[in-house]
Amino acid sequence: MTANEQGAGETAIQGPRKPKTARGKKTRAKILRAAEECFGTLGYHQAGITDITRYAGVALGSFYSYFSGKEDAMRELVREMGYNLRAHLAQNVAGATDRVDAEVRGLRAFLEYIRDHPWMYRILQEVQFVDEAVYREYYDTFSEHYARLLSEATQAGELRPGNNQVRNWALMGMGHFLGMRFALWEQDVPMDEIIKTMDDLLRHGLARSDQ
Amino acid sequence: MTANEQGAGETAIQGPRKPKTARGKKTRAKILRAAEECFGTLGYHQAGITDITRYAGVALGSFYSYFSGKEDAMRELVREMGYNLRAHLAQNVAGATDRVDAEVRGLRAFLEYIRDHPWMYRILQEVQFVDEAVYREYYDTFSEHYARLLSEATQAGELRPGNNQVRNWALMGMGHFLGMRFALWEQDVPMDEIIKTMDDLLRHGLARSDQ
Repeated sequence: MTANEQGAGETAIQGPRKPKTARGKKTRAKILRAAEECFGTLGYHQAGITDITRYAGVALGSFYSYFSGKEDAMRELVREMGYNLRAHLAQNVAGATDRVDAEVRGLRAFLEYIRDHPWMYRILQEVQFVDEAVYREYYDTFSEHYARLLSEATQAGELRPGNNQVRNWALMGMGHFLGMRFALWEQDVPMDEIIKTMDDLLRHGLARSDQ
Repeated sequence: MTANEQGAGETAIQGPRKPKTARGKKTRAKILRAAEECFGTLGYHQAGITDITRYAGVALGSFYSYFSGKEDAMRELVREMGYNLRAHLAQNVAGATDRVDAEVRGLRAFLEYIRDHPWMYRILQEVQFVDEAVYREYYDTFSEHYARLLSEATQAGELRPGNNQVRNWALMGMGHFLGMRFALWEQDVPMDEIIKTMDDLLRHGLARSDQ
């Protein structure tokens, strides 16, 4: 609320704006990359706006051209992280033979993404203490899209009937914990072993005799 | 590290100790309940030790009899929360007909527990920024016990062969996200519907034709 009001107030004078030029887009992107690095390494509370601009190599005024403050930059960063991750998953899931194949291809792509973006978890976990609505928005956006994919596959007869809202949150949770343990904390289990296990679980369940 | 050193230093004079008397145990438990309430409502950084002692109705000196500081109280609280949750789950899983039945009984008990302990998630999420080792310890302790149960069930022929370390983190993630969405954020899906969906998923998988 405060940040919004502040943002609105600043817009009236010379406030944050969407960049219109290619150069502006590049500067805004550079600031977000720097914010990701600073929030990731120092933590949100420790990282100052001057850390971000110094890391990005831009003037303080540039920051305020695109963001109303640190909270605003955090919000935009989380939105962008979600957008980039979804694009990465969509790209890697294309060509899947069925929904379970899409799930495990998506899981592999997700784990690889987390290994390459080690700050993502920390930033996402910390945003819930900065602005919980942004945290929920992140997962709700994912979930909305995801539940639709599951419903289409169910209607096409690929998946067993079931509550796809519940299944989609269960699947997101699986991915989150597998990413935390096997991509972020330790990489002690080969990717193929993880994927094989999850393919079997999602295809056949856990129980031995399928009655 | 700092807190440990500090704790050790204080022990040398008149530092934190395990309560020996029934009265001491009661006071320590009262302080932990108050810490749970204060960290949950105010957040770790906002909550002061005097908030905790005021809420518990004990003198400041009592706090320092049992804890070396706020970090120490947070650590002990998370350990106790994990212990209590595990005891609650074990109690509710007793009498399960097979491992999948134990999983869904455990899930039901977990969701009910989260509804009754709304601060647990916030505290657990926040502890990773206070002392990440305590956060990992929480899940590693769960995981160790959990993987053993899955391995026993696999050896008994109840579960399909598979990597139980991977499956156990996947199952913990399912529970975590289902708890977050359907117990903490919104309670818009009946418990029986959640359990039925998860029983089917864990028993038969997602794919329609089980080939």
